[in-house]
Amino acid sequence: MQQQISIVTLGVADLERSRRFYVEGFGWSPVFRNDEIIFYQMNGLILGTWLQAALEQDMRRGPQRAGAFALGHNVPRREDVQPLLQRLESFGGRILKNATEPPHGGLSGYVADPDDHAWEIAWNPAWKIDPQGHVTFGP
Amino acid sequence: MQQQISIVTLGVADLERSRRFYVEGFGWSPVFRNDEIIFYQMNGLILGTWLQAALEQDMRRGPQRAGAFALGHNVPRREDVQPLLQRLESFGGRILKNATEPPHGGLSGYVADPDDHAWEIAWNPAWKIDPQGHVTFGP
Repeated sequence: MQQQISIVTLGVADLERSRRFYVEGFGWSPVFRNDEIIFYQMNGLILGTWLQAALEQDMRRGPQRAGAFALGHNVPRREDVQPLLQRLESFGGRILKNATEPPHGGLSGYVADPDDHAWEIAWNPAWKIDPQGHVTFGP
Repeated sequence: MQQQISIVTLGVADLERSRRFYVEGFGWSPVFRNDEIIFYQMNGLILGTWLQAALEQDMRRGPQRAGAFALGHNVPRREDVQPLLQRLESFGGRILKNATEPPHGGLSGYVADPDDHAWEIAWNPAWKIDPQGHVTFGP
């Protein structure tokens, strides 16, 4: 079976608050929006931010909290990590861990989005990322 | 800033139980494993299943539950949706919603993995998926 993730859908309480974090914080552009969901075209998959009540109704369970998972966004340079964490904080995020050198190399920190979904912001020279943002497990 | 997700990391309580769901259920092959994490090369990003305590220590918060989010896996044919939900159930998953026609077309259902992370299994003719599994927001 194809090793494939089509979409990551995050439940959000306030679509506009979430939009500000992703559009003004990360600087990303939506590819679609209506009054309950915003889609972003990512590197070969879609990111969706959907009103949490609608997502929970769709997946037939809830209510849930932010959860035991993290999404990773890689930046091109080591010196990009901490400024992006701070920038995201200024657009409604909350820094969980400032930029730190992990044992396997590189530099990373964590920020929670306004709905408490965790994002790891990382510079990882061991992973190959093509110009479209597609990641190949390294080295 | 590049619209990019490098990795989706799921916290898991039991690495072997999780491996069985992803390797035997989905039929996916790991690209790396050690005694606390398994990585899968996906369509331009990595899926990681990491012992939840280690993930929570890394992101400096916890404990968390499964969370208000869902991952989507798209299948090529309408008739693949329900059998995959049932197959995943037989490898430690739990069906949240059987295959149903959503208002926007296609067919989808939800299954929770052994750690309660939700996967939507979908057939969606409106989204273009290339042979590498890369998805472009349609139509």
